[in-house]
Amino acid sequence: MHSFSVRTPRRSAFVEITEQVQSYVAGAGVAAGVAVVFVPHTTAGVTINENADPDVVHDLLLTLDRHFPKDAPGYRHAEGNSDSHIKASLMGSSCQVIVAGGRLVLGTWQGIYLCEFDGPRTRQVHVQLLPAAGK
Amino acid sequence: MHSFSVRTPRRSAFVEITEQVQSYVAGAGVAAGVAVVFVPHTTAGVTINENADPDVVHDLLLTLDRHFPKDAPGYRHAEGNSDSHIKASLMGSSCQVIVAGGRLVLGTWQGIYLCEFDGPRTRQVHVQLLPAAGK
Amino acid sequence: MHSFSVRTPRRSAFVEITEQVQSYVAGAGVAAGVAVVFVPHTTAGVTINENADPDVVHDLLLTLDRHFPKDAPGYRHAEGNSDSHIKASLMGSSCQVIVAGGRLVLGTWQGIYLCEFDGPRTRQVHVQLLPAAGK
Repeated sequence: MHSFSVRTPRRSAFVEITEQVQSYVAGAGVAAGVAVVFVPHTTAGVTINENADPDVVHDLLLTLDRHFPKDAPGYRHAEGNSDSHIKASLMGSSCQVIVAGGRLVLGTWQGIYLCEFDGPRTRQVHVQLLPAAGK
Repeated sequence: MHSFSVRTPRRSAFVEITEQVQSYVAGAGVAAGVAVVFVPHTTAGVTINENADPDVVHDLLLTLDRHFPKDAPGYRHAEGNSDSHIKASLMGSSCQVIVAGGRLVLGTWQGIYLCEFDGPRTRQVHVQLLPAAGK
Repeated sequence: MHSFSVRTPRRSAFVEITEQVQSYVAGAGVAAGVAVVFVPHTTAGVTINENADPDVVHDLLLTLDRHFPKDAPGYRHAEGNSDSHIKASLMGSSCQVIVAGGRLVLGTWQGIYLCEFDGPRTRQVHVQLLPAAGK
């Protein structure tokens, strides 16, 4: 397992981590398999989305914040970050990317994002590399 | 593949299954890899979120039920559980947890939850353990 | 890695791909493991949900389109498909299905769907097969 940390800049932010994952995979010597990317947090998640136009990330965060505002009637959790927890589960705590030829197989516009929903913080990311069935 | 069943208490509930998964992984003799947790249902899901303060789960369920109520204009599915199906896809039918040193690598506050959205029922959970690439 | 393409019929649609994945798995000669299904797109996703009553898919799409309409105040992304991007992240860019006895282990009502949110288009689907820890 490989781990690295990411500093997030504000309460809600998507921080791209594609290069950190790609760098690890490129040096790991596994030609074919799957890289599992996991965050050990409950108010942060991981997703794959467009990394070409930064307006996409802006609109993703806008949508999540509009639908799941920080305060809502009936919330009991005293830390005031219940919205962060639901956003984390909606994005998920992990993603998986296929590895072929020793590299991540991502689409032209795809990047891997750490999704921060209760920052700014320093977050951990774990990567585990699983080999494909041998041919 | 390892399977176990879970009894859910009401229509919407998160039932923690971390111990059942951990127990299987601890006895499986795989030092490093990934545990895949899968539910073979379409009105239940799996997610990872906080297991310290039960108010977090309360607020997660409150948010999901508020945004996706049981009845909504235009629903055609005659069983009356279309909301359960959308919630299941939002949480996802599986999660993956990295295994290192023969144990699940979870963050301090993370637990694995079976997400029931159309209970009470007895649900099945499958776990498959995948070995990491050898060093 | 195995890849195939799927033609989607309209802007929002779920196209079932269970048979394509099952067919590949059945011929791959791996008795036990996990099949990872991944779409290399940022306005399409993958989910597992009911494939018996087509009204379920109708209601899933209705719910997603109602909550995340094509236009919303504040959207900056000039392509006009910000809703497609958020829907893709909510469903996820991949799913995983356990393989046992050389076949996908799916529940009675479960099917694997390519989720199109900005069609009609021709989409790619990648499948990687990971072997379970040997017994």
